[in-house]
Amino acid sequence: MGMVGGGEGAFIGEIHRMAAAIDGQIELVCGAFSSEPAKALRSGLALGLDEHRVYPDYSTMLASEAALPENERMQFVAIVTPNHLHFPVAEAALQAGFHVLSDKPATFDLAEALELRAVVEQTGQLYGLTHTYNGYPLVKEAKERVARGELGTIRKVVVEYPQGWLADRQEDADNKQAQWRLDPTRAGISSCMGDIGVHAANLAEYISGLQITEMCADLTAFVEGRDLDDDGSVLLRFEGGAKGLLHSSQVCVGEENGLKIRVYGSLGGLEWSQQEPNTLWLKWPDRPAEMLRTGGPYLGELASANTRTPMGHPEGYLEAFANIYTAFAGQIRAREQNTDPDVRSRDCPGIAEAVRGMAFIELAVTASASDTKWHRFEQH
Amino acid sequence: MGMVGGGEGAFIGEIHRMAAAIDGQIELVCGAFSSEPAKALRSGLALGLDEHRVYPDYSTMLASEAALPENERMQFVAIVTPNHLHFPVAEAALQAGFHVLSDKPATFDLAEALELRAVVEQTGQLYGLTHTYNGYPLVKEAKERVARGELGTIRKVVVEYPQGWLADRQEDADNKQAQWRLDPTRAGISSCMGDIGVHAANLAEYISGLQITEMCADLTAFVEGRDLDDDGSVLLRFEGGAKGLLHSSQVCVGEENGLKIRVYGSLGGLEWSQQEPNTLWLKWPDRPAEMLRTGGPYLGELASANTRTPMGHPEGYLEAFANIYTAFAGQIRAREQNTDPDVRSRDCPGIAEAVRGMAFIELAVTASASDTKWHRFEQH
Amino acid sequence: MGMVGGGEGAFIGEIHRMAAAIDGQIELVCGAFSSEPAKALRSGLALGLDEHRVYPDYSTMLASEAALPENERMQFVAIVTPNHLHFPVAEAALQAGFHVLSDKPATFDLAEALELRAVVEQTGQLYGLTHTYNGYPLVKEAKERVARGELGTIRKVVVEYPQGWLADRQEDADNKQAQWRLDPTRAGISSCMGDIGVHAANLAEYISGLQITEMCADLTAFVEGRDLDDDGSVLLRFEGGAKGLLHSSQVCVGEENGLKIRVYGSLGGLEWSQQEPNTLWLKWPDRPAEMLRTGGPYLGELASANTRTPMGHPEGYLEAFANIYTAFAGQIRAREQNTDPDVRSRDCPGIAEAVRGMAFIELAVTASASDTKWHRFEQH
Amino acid sequence: MGMVGGGEGAFIGEIHRMAAAIDGQIELVCGAFSSEPAKALRSGLALGLDEHRVYPDYSTMLASEAALPENERMQFVAIVTPNHLHFPVAEAALQAGFHVLSDKPATFDLAEALELRAVVEQTGQLYGLTHTYNGYPLVKEAKERVARGELGTIRKVVVEYPQGWLADRQEDADNKQAQWRLDPTRAGISSCMGDIGVHAANLAEYISGLQITEMCADLTAFVEGRDLDDDGSVLLRFEGGAKGLLHSSQVCVGEENGLKIRVYGSLGGLEWSQQEPNTLWLKWPDRPAEMLRTGGPYLGELASANTRTPMGHPEGYLEAFANIYTAFAGQIRAREQNTDPDVRSRDCPGIAEAVRGMAFIELAVTASASDTKWHRFEQH
Repeated sequence: MGMVGGGEGAFIGEIHRMAAAIDGQIELVCGAFSSEPAKALRSGLALGLDEHRVYPDYSTMLASEAALPENERMQFVAIVTPNHLHFPVAEAALQAGFHVLSDKPATFDLAEALELRAVVEQTGQLYGLTHTYNGYPLVKEAKERVARGELGTIRKVVVEYPQGWLADRQEDADNKQAQWRLDPTRAGISSCMGDIGVHAANLAEYISGLQITEMCADLTAFVEGRDLDDDGSVLLRFEGGAKGLLHSSQVCVGEENGLKIRVYGSLGGLEWSQQEPNTLWLKWPDRPAEMLRTGGPYLGELASANTRTPMGHPEGYLEAFANIYTAFAGQIRAREQNTDPDVRSRDCPGIAEAVRGMAFIELAVTASASDTKWHRFEQH
Repeated sequence: MGMVGGGEGAFIGEIHRMAAAIDGQIELVCGAFSSEPAKALRSGLALGLDEHRVYPDYSTMLASEAALPENERMQFVAIVTPNHLHFPVAEAALQAGFHVLSDKPATFDLAEALELRAVVEQTGQLYGLTHTYNGYPLVKEAKERVARGELGTIRKVVVEYPQGWLADRQEDADNKQAQWRLDPTRAGISSCMGDIGVHAANLAEYISGLQITEMCADLTAFVEGRDLDDDGSVLLRFEGGAKGLLHSSQVCVGEENGLKIRVYGSLGGLEWSQQEPNTLWLKWPDRPAEMLRTGGPYLGELASANTRTPMGHPEGYLEAFANIYTAFAGQIRAREQNTDPDVRSRDCPGIAEAVRGMAFIELAVTASASDTKWHRFEQH
Repeated sequence: MGMVGGGEGAFIGEIHRMAAAIDGQIELVCGAFSSEPAKALRSGLALGLDEHRVYPDYSTMLASEAALPENERMQFVAIVTPNHLHFPVAEAALQAGFHVLSDKPATFDLAEALELRAVVEQTGQLYGLTHTYNGYPLVKEAKERVARGELGTIRKVVVEYPQGWLADRQEDADNKQAQWRLDPTRAGISSCMGDIGVHAANLAEYISGLQITEMCADLTAFVEGRDLDDDGSVLLRFEGGAKGLLHSSQVCVGEENGLKIRVYGSLGGLEWSQQEPNTLWLKWPDRPAEMLRTGGPYLGELASANTRTPMGHPEGYLEAFANIYTAFAGQIRAREQNTDPDVRSRDCPGIAEAVRGMAFIELAVTASASDTKWHRFEQH
Repeated sequence: MGMVGGGEGAFIGEIHRMAAAIDGQIELVCGAFSSEPAKALRSGLALGLDEHRVYPDYSTMLASEAALPENERMQFVAIVTPNHLHFPVAEAALQAGFHVLSDKPATFDLAEALELRAVVEQTGQLYGLTHTYNGYPLVKEAKERVARGELGTIRKVVVEYPQGWLADRQEDADNKQAQWRLDPTRAGISSCMGDIGVHAANLAEYISGLQITEMCADLTAFVEGRDLDDDGSVLLRFEGGAKGLLHSSQVCVGEENGLKIRVYGSLGGLEWSQQEPNTLWLKWPDRPAEMLRTGGPYLGELASANTRTPMGHPEGYLEAFANIYTAFAGQIRAREQNTDPDVRSRDCPGIAEAVRGMAFIELAVTASASDTKWHRFEQH
């Protein structure tokens, strides 16, 4: 793969590289790591790349790689830039004949996401989106159990994603993450919903198998001087009559990365928490709650295929992330070999999730600003 | 004390009696336990009461007790009937010169609560309300820490109260609790909000020290054929700019009695969960989270005064309930002795909480039925 | 009941009184609360006793109460003195025709325990011992599940009881608890094993249904200047080939009252922790672990009969303690009524546990002092 | 690196490869994956190796690689065979001029370990041992806090490592792991102590900074027909007067990989659990317990240098394993560059831990078979 963004000091680029490396299926062969040429070069060399494949910008990278023999050039582009660059890089890469695996949110706004979908359809290239949390084996198990009807008809989805790292003005300190995520020109129209609320919404739809149909929102910038929300609460309605609640925040002091979901149906409930990702709770009206664990012999094929270590040897965030990468690599391989993707490769977030994610962010902001209670989540 | 309601087979009457007994300060001396005279008598005798003080109805009880010499008669009435009788019994008892300790919700509707407040003011008798969860030592500690400013300016209150016991049609089984709580003629206009949502709202105001000023609500009767809500989500706004989220449900299958609150300020956060009531979390931006425990030497006077056993000897629901009873008994004693209530007696929910509780329930129902997003929580 | 010991400022006397009061079946009618007459009187009056039944010493109490008409006098004596007085008071009370419920350890040493057993047999009075932790509903459930063979053949018992309150020289501060528990003339030959190790051993035998047959011990007085152990580790062997491990300590800084047991058989395992007493874990080789909860509909008759509140309304230490009292009261009632004890009264620790407890303490001390590895736990 | 062992279907080889890959510093360039040539070749090709560097046996590999130009050949050998081959492979590799990173236990018996130490000293090559659990950031933090004296004088170390996977006769099923680990010709004189007890002992010494000086042991083969222990309990004494308890088992049904340690000193205590590796508890006599979390800003340099993701993004077993690999790679790099190892590379288990581990296993077996209570842990 080739990488755009993720130079020295960038958090998410390093994460992507480790995730790509774990399973030994993906090799980083080139990159355009920074808009500062010297930094880009330093970054690439530190990663052990051939100097000639450390490019000063993504356009050069796409052109140069496309010019290489097919069996030498990169096969896909990983995009780990700030949000406003996701779309132009993805579009150019797809047009240049490369597959794309992008960090989320997919684009700067919904309009771009719709445009991106058109490009994906037109080019026929593969597009993946790193909704990392879908990569956890027990999230996949949860999805499958709901789909099999074990919980009965879904009634209630409670999803929350509290963080605390922006509880004070980190943007005034030398915190680059804080700076771009709170900057409307780079992050888009939302900080909290755009960065983490969208993960929560995606997880709710992924596990429940239901689409959100209506929303009522109350977003806030609690810390003075911010242009974008750092907190938000959203009432949800789903197809089929289920209801829900989404809460995400960047100002819940002391919270780390508290993504957590509970789903209740007519027959049973489930609970999963990102900070204890190797445990999935199933709850029943008349029997003891069951604690499912990553690696358990009672788990389904999808969860098992996405697990590397035996029970009790905890897997974490990087392994979940790696599952997205490995699924995407499997899709590429299947296409090359003209076969069906294997079980592990079938379950990778893509352009549909990209569009829904951007639509969610926009609707949350719109609904919050409105005096009207309910807002329809349109199909795009 | 004398008790109205709580005959054979009643859940909450037995709870009240145990709570009243623990500290050895309160003696049950009479009761009107049931509208069925034979059952009332059986119940009273089983409790070891003198046959002459087991009354067929509350009017008789009030009249007969009032006729006894002052040092023989009951000093207060504990009301543990279904909701629709709370007000008439309380009113009659207060008018007859007795103090009243009532189960919640205080009355059938807000109008009654306001009337009750007038009666309390006019008679000058003491009135207490068993918002049990305030009775936990660590809930009191939480309140005091917030009041002292340890969390800074409060920004966010997340309170939830999921239960699962009404996830199927218990009202069709021989479940008397389910029957009256879902019956609008006995329970009032709400089941979920009236029974448990009101506890959550009270806890949020108690700990944060802030009053709710606006609400946006979405209540649901998930189980077919119900006239009253069995689930509800409420967005909250508090005085001073804090915001919040309240979720309560009776259909979250597998949940027991999951009252839980998190409060976040500009400097720190806290978390407390009723099912693990002897732990209070304090969370900080730059130091490790602290786990405070019931009985800890670092707790304040109020928490300590409400604790009976050393650290690690868990106290539970009955002890929290007993704290309400003991506080109320202390208020009576202080009045008799013309002294100030001691630390333990100062902190007992009363008529103000009664009125706010009924106002909360009514506003939640109104707001849910409305297309308008925000509804003001009026001062009454 | 009448109480010996437990005057002002005594910890365990107050606990016993609350435990006795909860279920409304037992009334404190007299006491000999202290060897200081003025303190004894103050204590009794503060408890609302009739001045004539607040006695200066236990001999006077036994004589005076025995002289009262049968339906007026106390029915049993609760003993809550320091250890060295347990035996003389119990013996005298039994001889005087009263039943006895004693705090543990039952006596000062094993010889006394054997003597006490003879007195119990000879007088035919009832004798109960407050091994409180057996009173928890889920401990009873655990015992029953093991007895039913759900775990298969028991192989391993791991029991631990760490506390930290004696990690520094509390005996030099004004801590009366610390003073007598570390004083060989009042506590006996062991502090840690005598106070809490014996609880752990009892729990291990109670739940596993197996008797300890051999022990290898290493006791320590970690804090300088102590005559008695404040820590101990014991290897255990049980009848039938099971093995075990017992660890108890009073110097594990920061630990509260960490009694915890795990039992593993050929088919399954269980885990219970006193600080989270409303949860019992069952663990299986090929299915998810199950979390049983106090009040659950799937629990057996014994656990259910010993539960007062619905699921999710936590019960604690006082309720477990009350279960011992209520069981003992039920035994007295059954004897008076010449019936079989009901389910709740059948399960109360008595003289057999008293003897085994004292034998355990003595053997732990002997084994620790010896260079021989294994020491037989003789039948007495 | 080159790998010996770890062909198709081998558990630990795959783990080593993933751990080596995460940080992008180590490349697998060759291997002798199996004693079956066809399987060895298939395994190597599946890993993307050049066919010429997939060797039929380790001798060929060592010879062939040594013959390559220095900048092309492997720099170190990772050994992931069953135990009986650890020593011969390590010895040959060291003699051939390669560094060695070996799975544990280091050798088949203590004699071999001592011989290995001589070879290491004589060749001057680097030797690392994958005591994986030392690789967790919070284990390192724990060690540093103890070393800084935050807990005061250490008194008690309680370490346990229960697993349940051998609770039935897995060796009769097609479980290769079970087969070789219970086979004295391949595993050595112990199964439970050799496989996991040695981890527990290492962790106890690593964190406490104290060496075990005496042991009293009781090992058992609970499952019929086994030649080697599947369970063991050990009383420990440490230099300086601290005492301890080690419990490990392969028959604790339902337990996964429950390595857990608690250390208590005169001033404070700590607790860490491998299944929740991102939490470290510090416990104090008079202040609330503190929950330290991986990635926390309050952690020391060593923990921070071994952490890849921000707080709340859980790291797991593979990351801990990777820390060992990365530390070893750093040592090699430092030697090549003739610099001091950086903070991350200073802390890698090596030949000293190898010898102590083998001595521990032998002494546990000896002590268990003996009637003598205490056995000295000699310095070797």
